[in-house]
Amino acid sequence: MIDGGGGPALLRRINESTVLARLHRAGPLRLGDLSDRTELSRQTIAQVVASLVDDGLVEYVEDDQSGRRSPGRPARLVRLRPDAAHVVGIDIGPHRTLAVVADLTGRIVAEDRGDSSRLHSSDEMLAHVRTQVNETLARGGVDPGTVRAVGVGTPGIVEAEHGVVVRAPDMPGWTSIDLADRLRPAVGCPVMVENDVNLAVLAERWRGDGPDAGIVVAVQWGSRVGAGILVGDRLLRGAHGAAGEVGFLPAAQGPPIGAATLGPFERRVGTTAIAELANDDATPDDPASATLTAARAGDPTALRVIDTVAARFVEGLAPLVLILDPDLVVIGGGVVRAGPPLLEAIERHLHGRTLVRPTLALSTLGDHAVAFGAARLALDEVERRLFTVR
Amino acid sequence: MIDGGGGPALLRRINESTVLARLHRAGPLRLGDLSDRTELSRQTIAQVVASLVDDGLVEYVEDDQSGRRSPGRPARLVRLRPDAAHVVGIDIGPHRTLAVVADLTGRIVAEDRGDSSRLHSSDEMLAHVRTQVNETLARGGVDPGTVRAVGVGTPGIVEAEHGVVVRAPDMPGWTSIDLADRLRPAVGCPVMVENDVNLAVLAERWRGDGPDAGIVVAVQWGSRVGAGILVGDRLLRGAHGAAGEVGFLPAAQGPPIGAATLGPFERRVGTTAIAELANDDATPDDPASATLTAARAGDPTALRVIDTVAARFVEGLAPLVLILDPDLVVIGGGVVRAGPPLLEAIERHLHGRTLVRPTLALSTLGDHAVAFGAARLALDEVERRLFTVR
Repeated sequence: MIDGGGGPALLRRINESTVLARLHRAGPLRLGDLSDRTELSRQTIAQVVASLVDDGLVEYVEDDQSGRRSPGRPARLVRLRPDAAHVVGIDIGPHRTLAVVADLTGRIVAEDRGDSSRLHSSDEMLAHVRTQVNETLARGGVDPGTVRAVGVGTPGIVEAEHGVVVRAPDMPGWTSIDLADRLRPAVGCPVMVENDVNLAVLAERWRGDGPDAGIVVAVQWGSRVGAGILVGDRLLRGAHGAAGEVGFLPAAQGPPIGAATLGPFERRVGTTAIAELANDDATPDDPASATLTAARAGDPTALRVIDTVAARFVEGLAPLVLILDPDLVVIGGGVVRAGPPLLEAIERHLHGRTLVRPTLALSTLGDHAVAFGAARLALDEVERRLFTVR
Repeated sequence: MIDGGGGPALLRRINESTVLARLHRAGPLRLGDLSDRTELSRQTIAQVVASLVDDGLVEYVEDDQSGRRSPGRPARLVRLRPDAAHVVGIDIGPHRTLAVVADLTGRIVAEDRGDSSRLHSSDEMLAHVRTQVNETLARGGVDPGTVRAVGVGTPGIVEAEHGVVVRAPDMPGWTSIDLADRLRPAVGCPVMVENDVNLAVLAERWRGDGPDAGIVVAVQWGSRVGAGILVGDRLLRGAHGAAGEVGFLPAAQGPPIGAATLGPFERRVGTTAIAELANDDATPDDPASATLTAARAGDPTALRVIDTVAARFVEGLAPLVLILDPDLVVIGGGVVRAGPPLLEAIERHLHGRTLVRPTLALSTLGDHAVAFGAARLALDEVERRLFTVR
């Protein structure tokens, strides 16, 4: 469709996006290199860059390396301005909230933790989140006007396209809430909503152990158990947004689905089950903590509990591996504090239960995974708008 | 990158692909409509169409409908020539082979069945397949020179990118065979190789019950059990090409993986298990046939067997649904001859075992599923080359 439509405005937008995308991929470049790599003329590049500098999207910096190598005036490089745009990623949970702010390069410039355990309605939760976003931006010295997208992670089944929480039994007043619509006026930019476990797998690909391609599964394993599944660049959400609900996998013992809030599998392996196995002095928010920490330190009793629960966990992990054949399974959530002994026990019990083996790893993202994934989701939206022509 | 590279040859290719793609999507069009929809000028369209007519890719036909509506000379429509290109789809199995030939519109113009049960080496199998391709083309009166791609389905784990069969325990001499390279000289065009169950799911999307989007699972259930998984337009192959190996799901009873060729789950639900449950007069190729047919006819004893095996099948189906949340699960293979009573029993046992329910269906493609999927794979390649500019 070369001879139809378009005109100078479209051409300028295409060229600007081409330059921004190239700088995003390659990092700072000289004008000449930018011309070579984009196959745009030197004159066109100069015009495009001048316009982008005016818009505050790119800036000139000195090339330190050339300065060291050769005498005279150092060459100038063009780069994306990291502070040209920001995103906010928020992890909303029934007990706590975590907000992070990232710049255009993905660097986290501020974070803020909040306590949501005493909020009793969606209105209270939304007010809490709005305040937290503003406080996090202020903490990072970030102009709210530079925030171009906000990503939100929430428990439950989410209709991502419209930013609606379809079902969230753990959160009071949260079912059927139109979360994107409710937050958008306060932040003045697009709001993307996604299931928290789905965001954890985006974070693992981005900042954790996830490779560039293939199938990555992030299992969040705490009092509940769920899995986010990434196939290439695409979240596997499922027909009803219910893919990866491994907490409801059939278990050897226990009542069927529907008889309790927890699913059969998570009742069998979750932190409450671990606390019961250990006769742990459980706290409601954080059962099994003492046992998990003791296992990491090599305590024999705690290690036996970990071994039992690892064997149970493999009853659910084996079907997941046989069905998906993932490249990588990252285990996150509260159980991670048991450390290498847990991973070793899972590896051992998985032996002989599958045809092929994924790489298994414990998440290194701690409780940042969901907020990081929310920031990544928002960055994807910003990059899509800045770096591609629609 | 508008001002770089290209030239008249590239421009012509882009315009030709644009016209072909439009005719492929929209069907026959007048020159004026083609100009409007492609945003190419009337003059450009006339040149492009003339060139494509010379190449034998498009042709003019009379517009019957306009002839009926208005007097005078009927308008001429441009359409893709269905016989401008053909593809071959081949299903290679240890007992039988099936080849189909499709034209550019996807219409099946010929098919041929072969017996492969007495072939003892890969050389014999390859010779058999080459002969069968030629015979199928001759039967359809198709010029071998118009065959632009061949798709091949085979049991086992396939490295699709290079057309290599990595592992195929059921096929003598088939493991590690470079199938695409071995067949290409005989057919003189690209050869795409894929796991047979993966092709079955492509066929279900194309000619069966598969919807246009979403997640479709095709379970092939005979003496063995495997699943092909389609996420949008993309086959979920897995990190090692081993996704969907549900035959190896853990089963309530039985030895672990490795102790036998069959996996725990397929040993428990496959046609051999059905024959054992029924004390059926089993034949090696087709056990359980009598029981399945009797169940369809309403025989109470056979229905009890079907009910038992449906309950066992759900032990594997429930994890698959919980992990993938598919839109549609199509069950194909030998068990389909039990008909609606089997589907009803599966629906009943699945109740309460998952959070959400996919649509369940029995395949209507009979034993054509893999060959149809192979033809679809080949058509995708032909369409990619004709209708897109690389």
